[in-house]
Amino acid sequence: MADGMYGRDTDDTYAHAGFGAPVRRGEHPAIVVVDLTNGFTDPAYPSGTDLSEVVAATSALIEHGRAAGVPVVFTTIAYTPAEADGEMVTWLRKAPGMRAMREGSPAVAIDERLPRRPEDVLVVKKGASAFFGTSLASTLTGLGCDTVLICGATTSGCVRATVVDAVQCGFSVLVPCECVGDRAAGPHEAGLFDINAKYGDVVGLADAVGYLTSPAKGADLDA
Amino acid sequence: MADGMYGRDTDDTYAHAGFGAPVRRGEHPAIVVVDLTNGFTDPAYPSGTDLSEVVAATSALIEHGRAAGVPVVFTTIAYTPAEADGEMVTWLRKAPGMRAMREGSPAVAIDERLPRRPEDVLVVKKGASAFFGTSLASTLTGLGCDTVLICGATTSGCVRATVVDAVQCGFSVLVPCECVGDRAAGPHEAGLFDINAKYGDVVGLADAVGYLTSPAKGADLDA
Amino acid sequence: MADGMYGRDTDDTYAHAGFGAPVRRGEHPAIVVVDLTNGFTDPAYPSGTDLSEVVAATSALIEHGRAAGVPVVFTTIAYTPAEADGEMVTWLRKAPGMRAMREGSPAVAIDERLPRRPEDVLVVKKGASAFFGTSLASTLTGLGCDTVLICGATTSGCVRATVVDAVQCGFSVLVPCECVGDRAAGPHEAGLFDINAKYGDVVGLADAVGYLTSPAKGADLDA
Amino acid sequence: MADGMYGRDTDDTYAHAGFGAPVRRGEHPAIVVVDLTNGFTDPAYPSGTDLSEVVAATSALIEHGRAAGVPVVFTTIAYTPAEADGEMVTWLRKAPGMRAMREGSPAVAIDERLPRRPEDVLVVKKGASAFFGTSLASTLTGLGCDTVLICGATTSGCVRATVVDAVQCGFSVLVPCECVGDRAAGPHEAGLFDINAKYGDVVGLADAVGYLTSPAKGADLDA
Repeated sequence: MADGMYGRDTDDTYAHAGFGAPVRRGEHPAIVVVDLTNGFTDPAYPSGTDLSEVVAATSALIEHGRAAGVPVVFTTIAYTPAEADGEMVTWLRKAPGMRAMREGSPAVAIDERLPRRPEDVLVVKKGASAFFGTSLASTLTGLGCDTVLICGATTSGCVRATVVDAVQCGFSVLVPCECVGDRAAGPHEAGLFDINAKYGDVVGLADAVGYLTSPAKGADLDA
Repeated sequence: MADGMYGRDTDDTYAHAGFGAPVRRGEHPAIVVVDLTNGFTDPAYPSGTDLSEVVAATSALIEHGRAAGVPVVFTTIAYTPAEADGEMVTWLRKAPGMRAMREGSPAVAIDERLPRRPEDVLVVKKGASAFFGTSLASTLTGLGCDTVLICGATTSGCVRATVVDAVQCGFSVLVPCECVGDRAAGPHEAGLFDINAKYGDVVGLADAVGYLTSPAKGADLDA
Repeated sequence: MADGMYGRDTDDTYAHAGFGAPVRRGEHPAIVVVDLTNGFTDPAYPSGTDLSEVVAATSALIEHGRAAGVPVVFTTIAYTPAEADGEMVTWLRKAPGMRAMREGSPAVAIDERLPRRPEDVLVVKKGASAFFGTSLASTLTGLGCDTVLICGATTSGCVRATVVDAVQCGFSVLVPCECVGDRAAGPHEAGLFDINAKYGDVVGLADAVGYLTSPAKGADLDA
Repeated sequence: MADGMYGRDTDDTYAHAGFGAPVRRGEHPAIVVVDLTNGFTDPAYPSGTDLSEVVAATSALIEHGRAAGVPVVFTTIAYTPAEADGEMVTWLRKAPGMRAMREGSPAVAIDERLPRRPEDVLVVKKGASAFFGTSLASTLTGLGCDTVLICGATTSGCVRATVVDAVQCGFSVLVPCECVGDRAAGPHEAGLFDINAKYGDVVGLADAVGYLTSPAKGADLDA
């Protein structure tokens, strides 16, 4: 996707270093939707931007996934009053705008345009990665998943941090590029480049849907 | 440092969202040197690039830090034969070049130009972040540290992942820009932009040395 | 406290192996109150037992701690409907009684006899340890803590698991024995024995209060 | 196994609270051998005790597992000189006997009576749990495992801590009672009681071997 944005020399350097191989698409995928809450998808919030297209593409992915029995996990950043007002969350010193993500407020509610269901897990997080300080890895293991499709916002922030942790946790990672968004084009593109080079495959939505709905998922895996 | 690389609009968007505040420089810093091993600092390795200037700047930082009693931690990526040759490390599917980082080989040895000492902790890691699946956070807590200065390689990869985890772990983060390096300019600059916006302060080496050697470190902290 | 419950031979074996040294009491303690929710402190719940004395002793510890500026953290086990009714939390297969700990129910509310305040952090957990899959370690680091006093229930279950993780995270651990309780005497005593031998100091409430209120906390620390 | 050690009343209390249900035996088990290093299995070491029978039973389990293609992971506690001699590992204050577990020494080498192979993963740990601060969970996920059989020493210490983390990570846990051992009978029995009540099934070796070698592993699983 973002290949080539830095030119041929950089691509050659990365190929020489041994990056960018395709991931192994497993038999048991899950969809993880990162922070598609009003505070990020609604431009009325200072931290928000119009992510209507990302919400639509992610909704389509979820609907196809559900038909194939794929579990869906949503995440939200939400702070208790003690955390939002105090100094115990070091990240909030650097990113004070996130203090607005108060537990119970509309900013932290999942965007209602998404087809969320009661059986979907909701992970509350306090940092960038959906895995850090949460039960997400345990939940995915408990569900028997081997592969995660990561959607949401922002590409250069929480999506990227979640991608890095997902592969570190042992899951194969796919990022459908229509399903991730950011506040600005530069960091978005740079994030996709790094993800595709080192952590997961940046793919098109159609490719992701084809994988999720294939009856032979993982059939070509070596033992 | 890298502010402005995407232009005024992006800077305005980030300021509006509430990012980029300065971190709190604590009373008890530590220096974490990420992956300045031969496999990354020596261009003779496919995964390496000439990081002589980064090694020199990091060495200077370490020497100043030692004089002020600041602990120093080195990290290396190193795989056992089972890991390097097998399929249990999911990341090695995506980044097969890292399979060359074999335990005991020169590729994983700390660059000898660095002033390493026996009392420095060496953290062996299997992924991008120096905190993931390692005892680094526990070590820093055991040492009573509140702030980490992160050096090493690569800016867009292991340094960045380590920075994100450091602030998620509750530590303030400073990144002396002379002390971090990458294989290509584009990802390096994009990495510094994201770090400075959201996770830690990208500073000059002189500023970092001034902080480390100040007798009044942390004196202006609100308690 | 529980020393000697297994007899002289066992004590000798442990001393020979090099266990049971006293912990280093740091300058910046925090109080962590594990699962003193109605579901554990009220015998009307199947998972509960009468922990009135533990609640009273913990309340006293908290009041003394507050006067000395010591931060207080409460934890609760609470599951979303998806988690309580589904199979994604592996622990709930083994311990199905915990499925009753539903988010928003009285079972998961902190016992009102405890002097909880808005500035106290509330950590929601899904397993035995208050550190596992939560932001507790990051919170304590963000608060600058070096020592934790662990209270709550049950001694042999969540308290013990929290103690083990606390010392693994790098914090010194004290367990005031009047402030922890269990459903049955056998596992309670066995838990205290193991804790005192290997992970933290089991102390009396008076000793814990004396430490918290000493103006010279940590003054005798080396380094 | 250890059921009933505290009498009928305690058993009734635990049943009423909803503990002790059998775990779900999955399709993809792994064997994790905790700390069967000379420092623990050889009574010549202060921290050791004669675990010849545990080593023999674990060897038998491994051989049966290998024939069925089950992956095997070994763990060892090992400290660098900086860790063993310094104060950065908080646990070593409480358990100074563990300072003898120095990297490269015979104390930390896997007992040679065990049928270890080059393709077995070796996890180096710094605390009680084999999961804490290590890549073990990621490795098991990368291998596609859903169930762990935990062997080794000591039952009340590192085995138990590993069991608690395993189920928290989302894996089903079996503990073959012939394959775990301790320095003293009291903590060993208490550990097995707690494990069987709350975290994993304590089973006989024959049952464990039958499960590992069944061609229909996991065939009766729902979903």
